[in-house]
Amino acid sequence: MSEKFDLRLAEWKEQIDDCLNKCVDDTSYPDEFKEILKYALFPGGKRLRPVLFLEWHSMYTQPDKNALWYACGIEMMHSYSLIHDDMPCMDNDDFRRGKPSVHKKYGEAKALLAGDALLDMAYNAMIDSSLAVGDVKSMKHFSLSGDRGIIHGQYLDLYRKNKSIDDLIDIYEKKTASLIKGSCLSGYAFSQKQGNGLLSMLFDDEMSVVDLSGVSPEEIELFYAVERFGKNFGIAFQLYDDISEYIAGEKTDGTSVLDFLDLAAAKELLNNYLNTATTALSADFGGDTSFLKELVEKFIIV
Amino acid sequence: MSEKFDLRLAEWKEQIDDCLNKCVDDTSYPDEFKEILKYALFPGGKRLRPVLFLEWHSMYTQPDKNALWYACGIEMMHSYSLIHDDMPCMDNDDFRRGKPSVHKKYGEAKALLAGDALLDMAYNAMIDSSLAVGDVKSMKHFSLSGDRGIIHGQYLDLYRKNKSIDDLIDIYEKKTASLIKGSCLSGYAFSQKQGNGLLSMLFDDEMSVVDLSGVSPEEIELFYAVERFGKNFGIAFQLYDDISEYIAGEKTDGTSVLDFLDLAAAKELLNNYLNTATTALSADFGGDTSFLKELVEKFIIV
Repeated sequence: MSEKFDLRLAEWKEQIDDCLNKCVDDTSYPDEFKEILKYALFPGGKRLRPVLFLEWHSMYTQPDKNALWYACGIEMMHSYSLIHDDMPCMDNDDFRRGKPSVHKKYGEAKALLAGDALLDMAYNAMIDSSLAVGDVKSMKHFSLSGDRGIIHGQYLDLYRKNKSIDDLIDIYEKKTASLIKGSCLSGYAFSQKQGNGLLSMLFDDEMSVVDLSGVSPEEIELFYAVERFGKNFGIAFQLYDDISEYIAGEKTDGTSVLDFLDLAAAKELLNNYLNTATTALSADFGGDTSFLKELVEKFIIV
Repeated sequence: MSEKFDLRLAEWKEQIDDCLNKCVDDTSYPDEFKEILKYALFPGGKRLRPVLFLEWHSMYTQPDKNALWYACGIEMMHSYSLIHDDMPCMDNDDFRRGKPSVHKKYGEAKALLAGDALLDMAYNAMIDSSLAVGDVKSMKHFSLSGDRGIIHGQYLDLYRKNKSIDDLIDIYEKKTASLIKGSCLSGYAFSQKQGNGLLSMLFDDEMSVVDLSGVSPEEIELFYAVERFGKNFGIAFQLYDDISEYIAGEKTDGTSVLDFLDLAAAKELLNNYLNTATTALSADFGGDTSFLKELVEKFIIV
């Protein structure tokens, strides 16, 4: 990895962490509940989702305070889903990122409430920044992330029988890739005036009015390239996790790609998804994609 | 109660129920998960919150499809909070409205997911209708309902020691009155062009730009009358519950107003809150408040 990449990543993470701290401090919750929220949010993982939002935002416009706020909304939504997924009635995970999961540390009731609180806080941050930049459509992606993403995926993961590799990829697309894809698309939409119109294309319900006036076919194509990147990178991200755990000899919770494929085939599948993501980046965005390209390379397993 | 009141209430409920059905049917969730969502939403209680939204909306403008959608968003948010509150780690209630609570019927994991799903669906409905009417500020009230309302109240209810009557009223204000107040205020704001500006007054954070240009002092006063109505009626609603259960000889979950006051004093307190709500309705709104007045009267206990 290049030094430039590491520096840029460290800068994003610092900004994200500062803003997440502020999101918690700004609430009127009792101090002991703020402590739980911070326990869940810090030290945090790779901050992949907000970093992707900020990177795609940087394609045309430098992210401002509002964009950062929005990025933290995405991270809080991710954090809520981890807390609830870890709970005994769900995946029953005692550890998360090397420390006791929230319910192990503070009990189930507080974990349930902390997850609920972070989901509200996520929307609150998104509403604020959407109002500030006049792009409210982006939020719709995240309000559908239950239906088309996190919750739907978790439900299938827990209850669908007769799993095949296609079923597994379907679950990874919903549970993991939907939020990652949403981060890329909303960051990209935030960075340009026609973002609202472009995002409307993704929502086919009767309430969404698609206004593509002033959007060229080339711009539409670029938008779908962003979607392709997000979806394929998101699925690859989960496959990478499975394969890394397998190689390290760790026990995977639930189903893994290694239940269906041998190691060589699993690696090939992972690298195929990563290749598709990289190819999507070769579209003529007119902005700098080098950070994203390096990010993808980090997940290649040879 | 007058026949006119009953008819109007029945009409609202029918419209709300139809729309809630549509909200669930419109998702892409598996059928068995849709069944759980409908189990939680139906037959439903008084539909008090969406009815209040629609009534306040009717003060100046007849609610349209978007308003109904928004009202159902509020009801889904209410429903999510009931599902999670009933869970074993929280209030551990086996029954809700005379039938097994969601986790008793479907298990804890599905109940947790159903609550999460309804919160996302609530925001999704609100985002759609907010976009349609151009009033996005209303949503902020609900995104803060965790911090200043439901979650905060539930946390205090579970963990705060040395409770006094003031503590209890504080919890009722957060846990119950905040959503009821929000329903009144957002309905009122939806019905008029200056709604966005008026609602901004309630949010004192740095992200909220208060634009009160074109709003007269009289309009601001009326807005605060709506808030007063919602807050006092909301607290009264919870006191009414406590007193009714006590009179019926039922065991109250958790603390009740009867732990601090005798029956006569509790009734007096309830009726004081209801009086304040009724007085707020006597402001010169220039619209029809007769339904709201009758609604308040239903909660008087002599």
